[in-house]
Amino acid sequence: MAITQLVEYEDAPPEVRAVYDDIMATRKVDWVNNMWKALAHHPPTLARVWSEVKTVMAPGALDPLTKELVYVAVSVTNNCEYCLHSHTAAARAKGMTEPMLGELMAVVALANQTNRLAIGYQVPVDERFRSAPPRSPG
Amino acid sequence: MAITQLVEYEDAPPEVRAVYDDIMATRKVDWVNNMWKALAHHPPTLARVWSEVKTVMAPGALDPLTKELVYVAVSVTNNCEYCLHSHTAAARAKGMTEPMLGELMAVVALANQTNRLAIGYQVPVDERFRSAPPRSPG
Amino acid sequence: MAITQLVEYEDAPPEVRAVYDDIMATRKVDWVNNMWKALAHHPPTLARVWSEVKTVMAPGALDPLTKELVYVAVSVTNNCEYCLHSHTAAARAKGMTEPMLGELMAVVALANQTNRLAIGYQVPVDERFRSAPPRSPG
Amino acid sequence: MAITQLVEYEDAPPEVRAVYDDIMATRKVDWVNNMWKALAHHPPTLARVWSEVKTVMAPGALDPLTKELVYVAVSVTNNCEYCLHSHTAAARAKGMTEPMLGELMAVVALANQTNRLAIGYQVPVDERFRSAPPRSPG
Amino acid sequence: MAITQLVEYEDAPPEVRAVYDDIMATRKVDWVNNMWKALAHHPPTLARVWSEVKTVMAPGALDPLTKELVYVAVSVTNNCEYCLHSHTAAARAKGMTEPMLGELMAVVALANQTNRLAIGYQVPVDERFRSAPPRSPG
Amino acid sequence: MAITQLVEYEDAPPEVRAVYDDIMATRKVDWVNNMWKALAHHPPTLARVWSEVKTVMAPGALDPLTKELVYVAVSVTNNCEYCLHSHTAAARAKGMTEPMLGELMAVVALANQTNRLAIGYQVPVDERFRSAPPRSPG
Repeated sequence: MAITQLVEYEDAPPEVRAVYDDIMATRKVDWVNNMWKALAHHPPTLARVWSEVKTVMAPGALDPLTKELVYVAVSVTNNCEYCLHSHTAAARAKGMTEPMLGELMAVVALANQTNRLAIGYQVPVDERFRSAPPRSPG
Repeated sequence: MAITQLVEYEDAPPEVRAVYDDIMATRKVDWVNNMWKALAHHPPTLARVWSEVKTVMAPGALDPLTKELVYVAVSVTNNCEYCLHSHTAAARAKGMTEPMLGELMAVVALANQTNRLAIGYQVPVDERFRSAPPRSPG
Repeated sequence: MAITQLVEYEDAPPEVRAVYDDIMATRKVDWVNNMWKALAHHPPTLARVWSEVKTVMAPGALDPLTKELVYVAVSVTNNCEYCLHSHTAAARAKGMTEPMLGELMAVVALANQTNRLAIGYQVPVDERFRSAPPRSPG
Repeated sequence: MAITQLVEYEDAPPEVRAVYDDIMATRKVDWVNNMWKALAHHPPTLARVWSEVKTVMAPGALDPLTKELVYVAVSVTNNCEYCLHSHTAAARAKGMTEPMLGELMAVVALANQTNRLAIGYQVPVDERFRSAPPRSPG
Repeated sequence: MAITQLVEYEDAPPEVRAVYDDIMATRKVDWVNNMWKALAHHPPTLARVWSEVKTVMAPGALDPLTKELVYVAVSVTNNCEYCLHSHTAAARAKGMTEPMLGELMAVVALANQTNRLAIGYQVPVDERFRSAPPRSPG
Repeated sequence: MAITQLVEYEDAPPEVRAVYDDIMATRKVDWVNNMWKALAHHPPTLARVWSEVKTVMAPGALDPLTKELVYVAVSVTNNCEYCLHSHTAAARAKGMTEPMLGELMAVVALANQTNRLAIGYQVPVDERFRSAPPRSPG
């Protein structure tokens, strides 16, 4: 049960429909998933978050599949059931195979394990890591 | 200040030195970072975790740089200062450029934002996500 | 399914009934929500936590609605489904409108985003923030 | 130590200076805090996040002080040292007194306690909470 | 709904069956719980994680019940529904009584409360804690 | 740097001194650690939290050392530096040896790993766990 009512296309005011139309056109699909129908109860958040997702998840220095894998990694760590379902579906659509999913989960789980060991022992940062040089593109 | 004393190579018992030697040989470096020196106070954990890191982070269905990016994403979300420094250094060594770092952080931050919106509104999972078919490799 | 059995009023020992009675009298309602029925399996925790909730959530330097909004913000960040439902209901009962909910969620989501950016880049605290003077009431 | 170099005004490219100028003009101050200098290493993130902060934290259905209190509550729960310092300073500047800070921390701590009890016992959501009616403004 | 299909014994390849057999033999039970059936979709993770659980949870300097209580404490804090059910069942099988569960939850909830107070106020670590001497066994 | 000023004994009002005196008497020490000096800026929180710590951490169905181990496990998972130092010191004072610390950290790290695997794959809870019978004491 959602905390607010989901806004369906036919009940949506024009500024919400405009975002729904852009979501469907950008993603080349004919439906809008529940996340956006929930955000639509507060139209400025809907418009702002969609614009942000569209910009940040576009191809850039990182390819779209890598971005989805990172998204899934965060969603596992934060325990977001909705996001896990939506972003593993997106990752599969962009080419994630089952062995890739298996390795992704293994890395996420390992990082959660070693994060706690570094925190638990309060391991001091090595000076050598502090001086690792950044790398320019190209 | 660490919760336990760091174990230096010269003070280490043979089973710890064997792990340190394998770390340096595998990574082709001549030093061991503090994480392992802290774990060395409990040799079975040192051996087990190193074996796990060596296995999970090796090239596979995902390439080593992608695995480091995922590691950084988890470390940001868990707020692990040590891991952030060690794994951004590792990611840079494996080819992460500054624009890639910028996009990585943007995706991590966005996912943390949308995770909270999906959780906050308790958005129900769309049936269509549940039926997304897995994809075989090749 | 709960991890323990919920204790109904009619099955409750006297010290549990006394807390249930105080909850209903304080809140001017004729029912007790499941949280307390679960805590009742360990009566000292029931009494202690109810006393704490009653004290901390009472009007003070912050008004009761502001306290509920803060409670919801924490519950979103911790992903507590029960708490989200109980405290958005409480906030609505104390005057939270739908636009207020929309802005609350937007602030919570934004803070989760910028928290990760500050952590991810390990941004050093500005000296000026450290010297911000506290403000006396009145 | 930050993960990236902070970008000072005098070294900043024009699109970064434009954001810095807008931050100072909007906040009526003559300096820019480190958060923005870190984000400036990736100018699109700087511009996007500043625009978002400016929009979301503006007065609306919730007043600016309430928004800062919510920001602090999230930053405590996420353990973001930088954000704690910057947003308690902002909250004090907007009128948060020491008794208000004391009550804020008490509510945040209590919510973290009761969140874990509700989660730990897997308390089922009461049907009555699911049917709490939303409230229209005015 | 799981993100991957659960692998039943009769459909499992030999290396998966070998792990299932070892789980049942080690635990002296005639069934395998869903966690392992999910991990089985990526056999190297199944083998590695089972080996780790078998080693770490074995009797040692800490007894098996204490280890289960610690496991439950982490699972509450991370909000892992599956782990809560599996590890409270395991703790009960190893001797956890209802009053022990009640006290465990009270300590977990209290620690979550005081953790946020220490973080929220950014309390500096006392020098005396830094010099607490480690204690040798025996 | 703390968010509030620490209140020293000689500057404390009578109701704060009374709590400090009780802390020192209960713990049979002649000093008060910084946590309480920070809480003292809001005396009702100081009194309430101390009373809670004194009650919850007292011997009961669980012994005091087990309670400290659970406290450390939560503090690692929440990444609370202060709490890690104060509660590992307390655990050592109550008998935690270095091998016990090593096993504690191994269990905490393992639980963080398997929690993420159960969450990441959204493993459904086995019916058998739901029907595990509670165990009466004695």
